[in-house]
Amino acid sequence: MGEETQKSFYITTPLEEVLRELSKISIKRRVENVSINVAFGRVLAEDFFSPINVPHFKRASKDGYAVKASDTFGAEEDDPKTLKVLGELRAGEKSDLVTDKGGCVKIATGALMPEGADAVVMVEFTEEEENHVRIYRPVSPDENVMKIGGDIKEKQKVLSKGTILSIQDLGVLSATGVREVKVYSKPLVTVASTGDEIINPGADLEPGKIYDINSVTIIQAVRQSGGEPIYMGVIPDDEDELIKAIKYSLEKADIAIFSGGTSKGPGDTVPTALREVSKPDFLIHGVSIKPGKPTAIASYNGKPVFMLPGYPTSALVVYYTIVDPQIRRWAGLPPASRPQVKAIAGMRIYSERGRFNFQPVRLEHEKGEIRAYPVPTGSEAITTLASSQGYVEIKPEIQFIEAGEDIMVYLWT
Amino acid sequence: MGEETQKSFYITTPLEEVLRELSKISIKRRVENVSINVAFGRVLAEDFFSPINVPHFKRASKDGYAVKASDTFGAEEDDPKTLKVLGELRAGEKSDLVTDKGGCVKIATGALMPEGADAVVMVEFTEEEENHVRIYRPVSPDENVMKIGGDIKEKQKVLSKGTILSIQDLGVLSATGVREVKVYSKPLVTVASTGDEIINPGADLEPGKIYDINSVTIIQAVRQSGGEPIYMGVIPDDEDELIKAIKYSLEKADIAIFSGGTSKGPGDTVPTALREVSKPDFLIHGVSIKPGKPTAIASYNGKPVFMLPGYPTSALVVYYTIVDPQIRRWAGLPPASRPQVKAIAGMRIYSERGRFNFQPVRLEHEKGEIRAYPVPTGSEAITTLASSQGYVEIKPEIQFIEAGEDIMVYLWT
Repeated sequence: MGEETQKSFYITTPLEEVLRELSKISIKRRVENVSINVAFGRVLAEDFFSPINVPHFKRASKDGYAVKASDTFGAEEDDPKTLKVLGELRAGEKSDLVTDKGGCVKIATGALMPEGADAVVMVEFTEEEENHVRIYRPVSPDENVMKIGGDIKEKQKVLSKGTILSIQDLGVLSATGVREVKVYSKPLVTVASTGDEIINPGADLEPGKIYDINSVTIIQAVRQSGGEPIYMGVIPDDEDELIKAIKYSLEKADIAIFSGGTSKGPGDTVPTALREVSKPDFLIHGVSIKPGKPTAIASYNGKPVFMLPGYPTSALVVYYTIVDPQIRRWAGLPPASRPQVKAIAGMRIYSERGRFNFQPVRLEHEKGEIRAYPVPTGSEAITTLASSQGYVEIKPEIQFIEAGEDIMVYLWT
Repeated sequence: MGEETQKSFYITTPLEEVLRELSKISIKRRVENVSINVAFGRVLAEDFFSPINVPHFKRASKDGYAVKASDTFGAEEDDPKTLKVLGELRAGEKSDLVTDKGGCVKIATGALMPEGADAVVMVEFTEEEENHVRIYRPVSPDENVMKIGGDIKEKQKVLSKGTILSIQDLGVLSATGVREVKVYSKPLVTVASTGDEIINPGADLEPGKIYDINSVTIIQAVRQSGGEPIYMGVIPDDEDELIKAIKYSLEKADIAIFSGGTSKGPGDTVPTALREVSKPDFLIHGVSIKPGKPTAIASYNGKPVFMLPGYPTSALVVYYTIVDPQIRRWAGLPPASRPQVKAIAGMRIYSERGRFNFQPVRLEHEKGEIRAYPVPTGSEAITTLASSQGYVEIKPEIQFIEAGEDIMVYLWT
């Protein structure tokens, strides 16, 4: 697991090449129907056409009196028109009322317009007295009325395939009365930690053992990428066990994520296991990034298997850099727009030439400026990760950032 | 539901006064234990102290050889020290190996340090041959070793009460081996739509009926505010039914949200119902905002009941302006930091003096600028809401924003 201590038994692949290789995988998305109650944030798998007109009846859009507009023509403040009130209609009511010439129906916003009426005079411009109402302002036909399909027309395309459903979109779907909507299924992603030293939370802590960290963090990260995590437990450091786990994952899931066990040295358990599973579409062992160099990636019939380093910081950096974009693509989501903040390097930040450096930093507010200080990553310490608010990307050709330089910090959340 | 058409049967309360009144409610938060697997985003209800040292054993932090540092003193490239390899220790292994003077143990990152050893020589600076290893560089005591509690000390406070748990925090909790963590319970929030015209999705669409929109949108909004929604269904326009629903809500939940039925005119169903439930701590009917004026709010023994307008846009605006901050406070979360974008008013945007205006706008990218155009809110049209990306706040003393003025647009998401 200590990536920095390894002799290079492998040739590392540049990050862009890794991403290019992964982008060649042609994704087989599944679709499913989900209730609109839980469809928020899901991705529409097809264009959505409204099954109905909204509203599907001629509707008063103000409180007032449903009239024949022509009956109100010429009405003035000091010369009102008087109409007979034939009845009253509240929202949700059906009725046989017909607005004949000279008559009108008291109506509430949202109520079905009675036959014969073509406009609504707002209550503000009327005065009712003993079954009659005085109209002080004229209305034109269709005024204060929403026509059938005035909001959404039947068979109208209201949402496009690929839409990430927002609260407003759920409102639109609700208006059309559908219960369910067709979305892309979340890609299934197995998550496992490997290592004889790793034990589950709550287990007895014998000397030499440590609690599993990566399963918890990566499972949550997968959820945020739009994937459906499947926890596989802790896998011992054993080639056969690893092969079994990879095979299981390829059967059950779309994507597999293991962490730990990528840099066991000359034994090369991981690449051997990856070769033994079956013939991989491609196999990468070693990526030119820091941290994360010992990362191994293979693909089998278009299903990628990621072997992340064991250190929590390394694992998360590789996750965000390489794995997250794949899960998002699988889910039909755009690449993450990670929030950024402008900062000043609080001290010289060293990088390693030839490797894309993702340097976690701690941010401090000093004299109205944000200063970024590197936190060490070459250790298993989880507190250093927790003390960082984000990371700085340093390109392979750059050796260090000088203290005082302006930098962009990508925030973890 | 048509708020703009109502005669003012009530005196509206300024927004700040409404928020001030609500801020006086003293919140009774419940706490609960949740699995760390689902604790992301939850709020710690107490300081968290580590139950163990992390690591709880002296641990090699590099691959190499566990040695007595003093045995390596003076080692040089052309004058190595030679030590006897007594055995090998892998991560997770226990052993009885003791590193005596002149001896060493081959060790993997993360493995338990053997007794007698106080440092690790990195494998890069060694050469092994027939049970002996040549050491080309000296190490000092504690080098490449993580001490007991080197990451986290037993009983150390690692996370503070009120922390919103991030992925990194979950990593820290995992490292200490806990399964569960004590967090604030999500406030329970009942959600109901009222109105005889409202029907559930999938129901038969008779003339005069419309599908429920607000339940779906508000339930999702409640989830995002950190609340736990409880759907109560559609409540008919009836004072007794409304009173029954409010009483049920006060019994089962912390906060109640109704929408629709707030502006039924002289009948005043809503304020009457709110008075009949029991003596309210306070009762507000009418808020000086647009849209959202007919909003009614009452509180009973510190449990707020919100009656939002029926129009989806009005309901959501009032939700974000007034309800969301309350749910967040209840959940222990800070006020929402709604993403903003700078834009230019694409046309004159009218407001209403004396009311705080939340004007939904549609954003258009034109010649490298973002232009904001108002979308109408005084209608039941859901498509207008869906076509807006955010809203502009216009203070009560301002009558309009001139075309071309710089404005800040708060994005819905």
